Amino acid sequence: MEKHAQTGWFNKLVSRRSVLAGTTVGLAVPAAMTVGAAAPTHTAAAQTGVVKKVTIYAELLPGNLYGYGLAEGQATVPGPTLEMYEGDTLEITLVNKTDKRLSIHPHGVDYSTDSDGSPFNASFNNPGETKVYTWRSRVAAQTAGRQYLPGSAGYWHYHDHAMGTDHGTQGVLRGLYGALIVRRRGDILPDKQFVAVFNGMQINNKVAPDTPMFEANLGQRVEWIAIGHGDLFHTFHLHAHRWADNRTGYLDGPSDPTRAIDNKDLNPGSSFGFQVIAGEGVGPGAWMYHCHVQNHSDGGMVGIFLVRNADGSMPPGAQDAIDRFHGHVHAASAATDMPGMSH
Amino acid sequence: MEKHAQTGWFNKLVSRRSVLAGTTVGLAVPAAMTVGAAAPTHTAAAQTGVVKKVTIYAELLPGNLYGYGLAEGQATVPGPTLEMYEGDTLEITLVNKTDKRLSIHPHGVDYSTDSDGSPFNASFNNPGETKVYTWRSRVAAQTAGRQYLPGSAGYWHYHDHAMGTDHGTQGVLRGLYGALIVRRRGDILPDKQFVAVFNGMQINNKVAPDTPMFEANLGQRVEWIAIGHGDLFHTFHLHAHRWADNRTGYLDGPSDPTRAIDNKDLNPGSSFGFQVIAGEGVGPGAWMYHCHVQNHSDGGMVGIFLVRNADGSMPPGAQDAIDRFHGHVHAASAATDMPGMSH
Amino acid sequence: MEKHAQTGWFNKLVSRRSVLAGTTVGLAVPAAMTVGAAAPTHTAAAQTGVVKKVTIYAELLPGNLYGYGLAEGQATVPGPTLEMYEGDTLEITLVNKTDKRLSIHPHGVDYSTDSDGSPFNASFNNPGETKVYTWRSRVAAQTAGRQYLPGSAGYWHYHDHAMGTDHGTQGVLRGLYGALIVRRRGDILPDKQFVAVFNGMQINNKVAPDTPMFEANLGQRVEWIAIGHGDLFHTFHLHAHRWADNRTGYLDGPSDPTRAIDNKDLNPGSSFGFQVIAGEGVGPGAWMYHCHVQNHSDGGMVGIFLVRNADGSMPPGAQDAIDRFHGHVHAASAATDMPGMSH
Repeated sequence: MEKHAQTGWFNKLVSRRSVLAGTTVGLAVPAAMTVGAAAPTHTAAAQTGVVKKVTIYAELLPGNLYGYGLAEGQATVPGPTLEMYEGDTLEITLVNKTDKRLSIHPHGVDYSTDSDGSPFNASFNNPGETKVYTWRSRVAAQTAGRQYLPGSAGYWHYHDHAMGTDHGTQGVLRGLYGALIVRRRGDILPDKQFVAVFNGMQINNKVAPDTPMFEANLGQRVEWIAIGHGDLFHTFHLHAHRWADNRTGYLDGPSDPTRAIDNKDLNPGSSFGFQVIAGEGVGPGAWMYHCHVQNHSDGGMVGIFLVRNADGSMPPGAQDAIDRFHGHVHAASAATDMPGMSH
Repeated sequence: MEKHAQTGWFNKLVSRRSVLAGTTVGLAVPAAMTVGAAAPTHTAAAQTGVVKKVTIYAELLPGNLYGYGLAEGQATVPGPTLEMYEGDTLEITLVNKTDKRLSIHPHGVDYSTDSDGSPFNASFNNPGETKVYTWRSRVAAQTAGRQYLPGSAGYWHYHDHAMGTDHGTQGVLRGLYGALIVRRRGDILPDKQFVAVFNGMQINNKVAPDTPMFEANLGQRVEWIAIGHGDLFHTFHLHAHRWADNRTGYLDGPSDPTRAIDNKDLNPGSSFGFQVIAGEGVGPGAWMYHCHVQNHSDGGMVGIFLVRNADGSMPPGAQDAIDRFHGHVHAASAATDMPGMSH
Repeated sequence: MEKHAQTGWFNKLVSRRSVLAGTTVGLAVPAAMTVGAAAPTHTAAAQTGVVKKVTIYAELLPGNLYGYGLAEGQATVPGPTLEMYEGDTLEITLVNKTDKRLSIHPHGVDYSTDSDGSPFNASFNNPGETKVYTWRSRVAAQTAGRQYLPGSAGYWHYHDHAMGTDHGTQGVLRGLYGALIVRRRGDILPDKQFVAVFNGMQINNKVAPDTPMFEANLGQRVEWIAIGHGDLFHTFHLHAHRWADNRTGYLDGPSDPTRAIDNKDLNPGSSFGFQVIAGEGVGPGAWMYHCHVQNHSDGGMVGIFLVRNADGSMPPGAQDAIDRFHGHVHAASAATDMPGMSH
């Protein structure tokens, strides 16, 4: 189930294994590999980072899907997870291998109108066209008193903004989306990374039991990035783990008043992320993550977070749970009151 | 309207009166009353508290509802409010008095897969079956730098996860839910506690004017726990009172940047809580709480927060408002543009 | 496009120009101009401010809309933005110039039951009737330990609570709403103010391309107030700008753990506000703001945030974008898969 898609000119930001949903790539490209002049910036802060260049290919995929990929023939849904540190600039060469108009539009970072990714700003790729989009980031900057403009750090996302409608409705519907992480210096790096996109009635354009099974070993630091898309409202729930409802998912200290949550609204255009220690306080096992809207979970918006033993072996009962999941009958059982359950 | 359901072996955590919606029970059982070995835990922090044991009965109720109760024949909708301090363990013996498969699944606390409450983990009660579920809690724990894993403190909830579908859709629909509070040492205890569950188009499975009327005297410290369930999105609004959008509802100091709110999203699987001083700054009277989605409030998702005078007497106008409320015509008037209003 | 509606007895709180959606009025009326005795208050804190009096007219508007205005014949949708500092009292004389029952109901401030604005509390204006509503505000107050009751500061709103149904569903549907800002002493005042109300499938009861175009010059401090109404859920997204998800939209310092966002749930009865520096880090241009629910943006829930050059001149490409926007075909193109795009 593992997939390593980074190309040779990429240094991985952090070691990760078996990211099942999409392809995650750390983007700590050495500054020496950047090309040309510094990206145009409007703040001094943005000039402190490095400029990283990446080529992304938008392609048609089986099942009437579209995906972004870091090499030809390697598009995935969701697309590659893109990462940068506050201050870095990401220069994306988007190659449109499809016969549709499309683009790439980011949340959370800075871009000029020509990198907006919207037909509104004439910023898109025509069929077969290649175009460069530049995303800049910056640290928090004081404006007056104790008022700071927030920096770019956050668990963001990117998506098409041009296919089908001026808002990219067809591109988003069919898989043109991915995670974008901007880290603050000093942020703790995870061992694993999972991206779950609640899109319509699907997760990463899949329905249970074909939704991603995310795997980690007991005690690993796992980073979740949750993204909402489409026309419906959702709530993301993870069993047996919780996080702080802030930028990192961690509290700042033992008396931090931030709310701890294990269920969060995940509506179109929103995203959040957090880190948990896999199985911390609860042990290994097969845990569900799902939309908590009842007819959505019954309809198949549910997947598995498999926490293996620390040595990678399967904990008791986990395989049975997975097997039950694959025999899971969703919409049918939901539509029937008190059916005979098969398990 | 008062109901005291705690049994003799419970010490009340705090004095409360007239909790109209469901039954609230403090769970500060002395450690000497706990039975047997310490619960299995995975963190040292979880071992600092006490182990409390409670038996909960799931029963069929009139009106095709189901409820949880602390004694046979005493099931309510919502079920009893369960409380613990961070570090405590709650060992629940669930007795299924119904002819349906059901379970009890908590949010916010730690549990092993065998206490997951899900058919996915084969964790449920068959009809007539008794089963033990163990919920553990813990304080915040430092991981690295200023990054703390949040503790269990929060306004959480519990619900069935097995009746009708693998997500407990029928159980939740018919009333198998309740509040779960995990307090941090030093948290201020309330004088009163109200639980409002927005479930489908109902509040605590009731429609106005049969929704709960919550009562307090001017100046009492009132704790609200709001829980969302079902298939619909909601916003919880309370008239004339507001709270901070964090763990407690209080600010940490006069310059705390947390947003104050009086209307909050309350979507399926989410919960929050806060304390207000009844009538603070606004005086006694009959105040509305309601879903702010217009066709939901018009449809009857509205109830009364009656703030009596400090001596418990009725303030001027309050009874008139209550009387108007009981003559309230909901869906009919909402469906008609500008009908003749009866009041 | 400019509109200055403040009457002579108003001092503007801050200089603002071209607030396109509705009319914004600072309410820093000198205390010497207030009339009569202090408003009845229940907290000492509320007595430290000034009492300000304003007359608001509710009127029928073209297009089957209703609006609030600060003078006869000047009603707008949304109504005037009302502002106060924590501690101030606002005494509103509401003149009902319509033939419908209506009221004015605020969020975030203190009011007695007779100013509730609800038929439930017999607090409304009959057709042609004039009635006074009193809104009080207060600073945060310590209750115990580090627990502070939040003050009134916030980006709030007001709306009808009596037209059509007991919840003002018809009044809200047809435009009877506006922004209410309560500032904390020391808050930074903006150069510009924009109010965007997501109401049903419309913004300020308009559909693109007739939605408000908000304008500022590069570097101006722009305050957005976003309000949700109606029956639908929404997410507010602003291109190329972001803010902190707290009371002000600013961080408290460079290590503030608050999440930065550029997309936020905006559901019925909720509101939030934030300040951004127009074009900061991204430059001037025509930027979209829109609901990120795909069929809502495709249906016309989108508008323009025009950031001009610092000298007020048009940046390259902006007029082209605006022209494209006015040729924008919404629902039709959204309903068709991959239509020929005209731009």
